[in-house]
Amino acid sequence: MRALYFDKKLSHRTDYPVPKQKCNEALIRIRMAGICNTDLEIINGYMDFKGVPGHEFVGIVEKSEEKKWEGKRVAGEINIGCGVCSYCLSRMKNHCPNRSVLGILKKDGAFADYITLPVRNLHAIPDSVSDEEAVFIEPIAAAFEISHQVNIKPGDKICVLGDGKLGILAGQVLSLTGCNLTVIGHHEEKLSILSEIGIHTSLHEDINGKFDVVVDCTGSQSGLKKSLVLAKPKGKIILKTTLAKREPVDLNELVINEIDLIGSRCGPFAPAIRALQKKLIDTRPLISKTYFLDEGIEAFKYASQKGVLKVILKTE
Amino acid sequence: MRALYFDKKLSHRTDYPVPKQKCNEALIRIRMAGICNTDLEIINGYMDFKGVPGHEFVGIVEKSEEKKWEGKRVAGEINIGCGVCSYCLSRMKNHCPNRSVLGILKKDGAFADYITLPVRNLHAIPDSVSDEEAVFIEPIAAAFEISHQVNIKPGDKICVLGDGKLGILAGQVLSLTGCNLTVIGHHEEKLSILSEIGIHTSLHEDINGKFDVVVDCTGSQSGLKKSLVLAKPKGKIILKTTLAKREPVDLNELVINEIDLIGSRCGPFAPAIRALQKKLIDTRPLISKTYFLDEGIEAFKYASQKGVLKVILKTE
Repeated sequence: MRALYFDKKLSHRTDYPVPKQKCNEALIRIRMAGICNTDLEIINGYMDFKGVPGHEFVGIVEKSEEKKWEGKRVAGEINIGCGVCSYCLSRMKNHCPNRSVLGILKKDGAFADYITLPVRNLHAIPDSVSDEEAVFIEPIAAAFEISHQVNIKPGDKICVLGDGKLGILAGQVLSLTGCNLTVIGHHEEKLSILSEIGIHTSLHEDINGKFDVVVDCTGSQSGLKKSLVLAKPKGKIILKTTLAKREPVDLNELVINEIDLIGSRCGPFAPAIRALQKKLIDTRPLISKTYFLDEGIEAFKYASQKGVLKVILKTE
Repeated sequence: MRALYFDKKLSHRTDYPVPKQKCNEALIRIRMAGICNTDLEIINGYMDFKGVPGHEFVGIVEKSEEKKWEGKRVAGEINIGCGVCSYCLSRMKNHCPNRSVLGILKKDGAFADYITLPVRNLHAIPDSVSDEEAVFIEPIAAAFEISHQVNIKPGDKICVLGDGKLGILAGQVLSLTGCNLTVIGHHEEKLSILSEIGIHTSLHEDINGKFDVVVDCTGSQSGLKKSLVLAKPKGKIILKTTLAKREPVDLNELVINEIDLIGSRCGPFAPAIRALQKKLIDTRPLISKTYFLDEGIEAFKYASQKGVLKVILKTE
């Protein structure tokens, strides 16, 4: 099959073996996959990953021991727990110490014709949700993880730092809570995606005041430092940004102001699918360009350019 | 009056002016005051403080516009809010941006014959609580701040890192919740204070396993780094340690493991007084030595030695 393969460098392969189904796994033919910042970090060496990257996908189940799945259009949760440890047994499979993660850790991913995933990771996609929407289910779920972890009160004053892909999705998701929301970024053209749908935005230089909750979606070295300035005493900072290097921060400020700094990663798929079904999230302006899988190398080059939002790979 | 005065160096003064009562303030004659690590940091330049340090005290109200306070034995909350800002009006005076803090920020403290404090900061001490117990109300309140901020579940596996003054008090306070508690330190003789009253302790090198909640009371550069190793995924770290310098930590681990890092400072006095009244906290083994105020310089020297726990100054 075709696959983008990473081993120190990214290559386009046409002879890559179709993955073998393990017990309880489905074989899924990929229709579309999105390039995420994590993928860009991976091809810069993050996680020391070797294999096929890609974890945001929509596909069709070709083979499954559970026949009812065959032919279904699906998205899939990316963390594969061992199924028997205390984390897996307490609904925390995302934190299973023996997990693999699709396209990120010990498991080939979705920039290919086929993947395998355990059937328990799959979510059927309703007909009213298009492929172009469904390919965003994974990052929208990551945005829903914020309100899964923290009680976002409708009266809260909240800011999202960052106007990249995750910042724009987190802004849309958090605006559904009724909170007093501002998305803060450096790029007027990206912020306009949100202001056009009625979400309050601001350039960094225009911000003053403090927030009950600050969500760092900057992916930048300075994000946490800025978050500590913007959070009220006893406020919360949701840290979405993983980085090889970060500007040093004064954690005495965190103690003195009793700030609550919460790391946040993957989230629940079901609310993401429900929100797309109800047309509460607009993914269209997030797609910068769609490439064929065969143009994958070029697509990655384009995706890593400044100002580019989501780049999609489609198999046909 | 007599006072220990700090301005780049600590000096013993006998001609220091008795503080003038502001509106709503009481004049309090100090009986005892404890030397806290923050005091040791202050005389090393922390907070750029100039004046009389000292914030853990027990004293007698000499003068107050509210006559019912006169003659009462009291402890006092150390944060003095402006009383009119949104923080003060929402029971967050400890975070008032215009606050002063007794012996720490813009307010002379308790290593002296007299202090003033707003009457609303005072707590009467029951007769059954001795001066030697009452002088610990402020740090015991700081330990109660942990369970004020976080729901400590009786089934939780919790560790306190650090066997210094705050670690020993936090251990005693947290053990009251019924949780599965271990206090971890480097000093067998200090840990024995806790093991003798039935609290499980461990030396650092003997620890393995993960904890639902880790409380960093180390006051050391490596405390947070160790906490990140010991916290379970989705676990909490309570950060009590303020430091001029801290070992760099990998905050990607905080994101990936969705750790909740919570800064924690001053706490509620009323539960601390209730716990002392019920004899639930044993402060006696924490007192390393008691000096007279006139021996204050010597007392500070002794307090800064390794292995020393609480040093008390008494006025007479």
